[in-house]
Amino acid sequence: MKAIVVQPGAGSPVVVERPVPEPASGEALVRICRVGVDGTDYEVIEGSHGGVPDGDDQLVLGHEAVGVVEDANGTELEEGQYVVPTVRRPPAGVETNEYFERGEPDMAPDGEYVERGIVGAHGFMAEYITSPAADLVPIPAELAEWGFLVEPISITEKAIEHARATRSAFDWRPESALVLGTGSLGLLTVAMFATTLDYERVYCLGRKDRPHPMIDIIERLGATYIDSRETPVSEIPGAYEPMDVVYEATGYAKHAFESIDALAPNGVAALLGVPSDWSFEVDGGRLHRELVLHNKAVVGSVNSNRRHFEAAIDTLDALPDWTLESIVTGIYGLESVDRAFPKATARVAAAGHASAGAPDDDTTIKTAVEFRDI
Amino acid sequence: MKAIVVQPGAGSPVVVERPVPEPASGEALVRICRVGVDGTDYEVIEGSHGGVPDGDDQLVLGHEAVGVVEDANGTELEEGQYVVPTVRRPPAGVETNEYFERGEPDMAPDGEYVERGIVGAHGFMAEYITSPAADLVPIPAELAEWGFLVEPISITEKAIEHARATRSAFDWRPESALVLGTGSLGLLTVAMFATTLDYERVYCLGRKDRPHPMIDIIERLGATYIDSRETPVSEIPGAYEPMDVVYEATGYAKHAFESIDALAPNGVAALLGVPSDWSFEVDGGRLHRELVLHNKAVVGSVNSNRRHFEAAIDTLDALPDWTLESIVTGIYGLESVDRAFPKATARVAAAGHASAGAPDDDTTIKTAVEFRDI
Repeated sequence: MKAIVVQPGAGSPVVVERPVPEPASGEALVRICRVGVDGTDYEVIEGSHGGVPDGDDQLVLGHEAVGVVEDANGTELEEGQYVVPTVRRPPAGVETNEYFERGEPDMAPDGEYVERGIVGAHGFMAEYITSPAADLVPIPAELAEWGFLVEPISITEKAIEHARATRSAFDWRPESALVLGTGSLGLLTVAMFATTLDYERVYCLGRKDRPHPMIDIIERLGATYIDSRETPVSEIPGAYEPMDVVYEATGYAKHAFESIDALAPNGVAALLGVPSDWSFEVDGGRLHRELVLHNKAVVGSVNSNRRHFEAAIDTLDALPDWTLESIVTGIYGLESVDRAFPKATARVAAAGHASAGAPDDDTTIKTAVEFRDI
Repeated sequence: MKAIVVQPGAGSPVVVERPVPEPASGEALVRICRVGVDGTDYEVIEGSHGGVPDGDDQLVLGHEAVGVVEDANGTELEEGQYVVPTVRRPPAGVETNEYFERGEPDMAPDGEYVERGIVGAHGFMAEYITSPAADLVPIPAELAEWGFLVEPISITEKAIEHARATRSAFDWRPESALVLGTGSLGLLTVAMFATTLDYERVYCLGRKDRPHPMIDIIERLGATYIDSRETPVSEIPGAYEPMDVVYEATGYAKHAFESIDALAPNGVAALLGVPSDWSFEVDGGRLHRELVLHNKAVVGSVNSNRRHFEAAIDTLDALPDWTLESIVTGIYGLESVDRAFPKATARVAAAGHASAGAPDDDTTIKTAVEFRDI
């Protein structure tokens, strides 16, 4: 079968031949249909995050997949059923641990998990994968074409769940939300705040010049675009309003701290970015005092569990079709994999290597690789 | 009647004569027994926090009180009943607002409340006070001698409630807690973690040389004393263990950030200090990444509401008597008010003024002023 693999830090993903995997007991064989590409994939390609399985020098990429059960292999799944695989698995050689037993692998610390397509386990960019049936979440056939968006949406489901939990000890009535970042996760989250989560006023911060399709999506959702070059995060309360929720999806470390200033009293900032080390000065006294005197909270969130995938499928069903059609800017077959990774190929091109891929024209939002028609 | 007033920023508290207040409809007249002194009182005395009521140049101090109902004035309270007053009230001229209506004045933002004895309203260091009956929490007579500890304990009740809420979206099983600060609030919180909250391992960070009564209390509670001069907060995980909860009661702004490093995965830092502006460098990239990849949370908490006072009365009942007897190092009548404010008098003495008060000998933990025998 064909699979897309990468040697972390050593160039763009390539298509290779690999043997079709055989399902073990309790596992199903899944024929993959589509797999989304996100920022984490680029970090894995660059070698700045994640890593290959022990004893391997390549990693099959991909952690945002939708496929169809090819061989249920005696599990309770049905052949022909569309499924979305979750990402975390117990470490190699370990059957389970307390986090997996509780259904909360997203809360497992380092060393207690691997992540398929990211760290320590091969991913889903292959014609076939095997997975424990319990880690395959059924999705209705009519949603399958967008099924590769379930994983990123589940990331927001978890982050919002945890953010709400921080505010569950009192009567919290949030109305305003600010999303930092105009990437695919940011825009999906803007769509969720504006529609399924029903926030009254939604804002999205980015660094794009008008006209721009990302800004069009934000505004068509009824949200307000804020240009960070004109209004820094900490000035947003004065220029717009203080925010009940800030959702950070930029990985820009100063945003984690500026979010505290952007919050309304009793607000919460959910952080999702994974920045590198970066030292800078903050008015730590003021930020500390702000957190205390205004009962503010900051919560980090990573990964998601099966419950969040199930919630994400409901969300996917509820989001307006046009948002999905606008956010997904390209679905590419194996013959044009480079176009699914425009940022990787753009970087390779920038580094002076030949590349058949399309340059990153800044209007790419979300791409996916298609292994099989839906 | 006698009352203890202060001109913020203009010296030590003094005893003055004031008229006995008359209860309005819905209010009771309370004869005050004891009022505790805490760090906030010193901030008010210095003028760095809080402020006098509009049109006044003095503030009656005191927000940690226990008294006895002298005139129920037609309310449902009973004369002779011991009560503890809550602290926040609607602003002058305002009957109520949404926060007070919900029973959550602790979540009201600036401008939506005054605080008795702190900002905008006279406090409880007087022979008599009046208060709406709804803001007077009954306390059993056998606990009344320690009733002035209900307010500080309620501060921790709220902070812990909010900290637990941040972790309520998953199966959290905290075992280790670190309290930053050996002041009275820190020590009361160590006692709570070690007894009523039933944490398995409790640590308390301070800057005291052995032998010291504060260290004795920590160790008698089965907790571990950590000297911050030997082990900075961020090195505590390596030297001891990562902490499921960090409770900051120092007001030292760097602790708010170092707490993130001290936390175990899925842990939460509760911040209670109110520092002044202070800029310093942090490795913001690493802290941001730590929060995200390990699902950590930081929550600020201020004030408390009636529900927390009620919980605090249960806690007070459950705490070992010796902890209260050890933490309360002095109860002083009006004839020796200076001894109830040793830090204020020490500062006045240091500034070259005459002072009849005792110097702050560093073993004072918690003092109270007694207006009437219990």
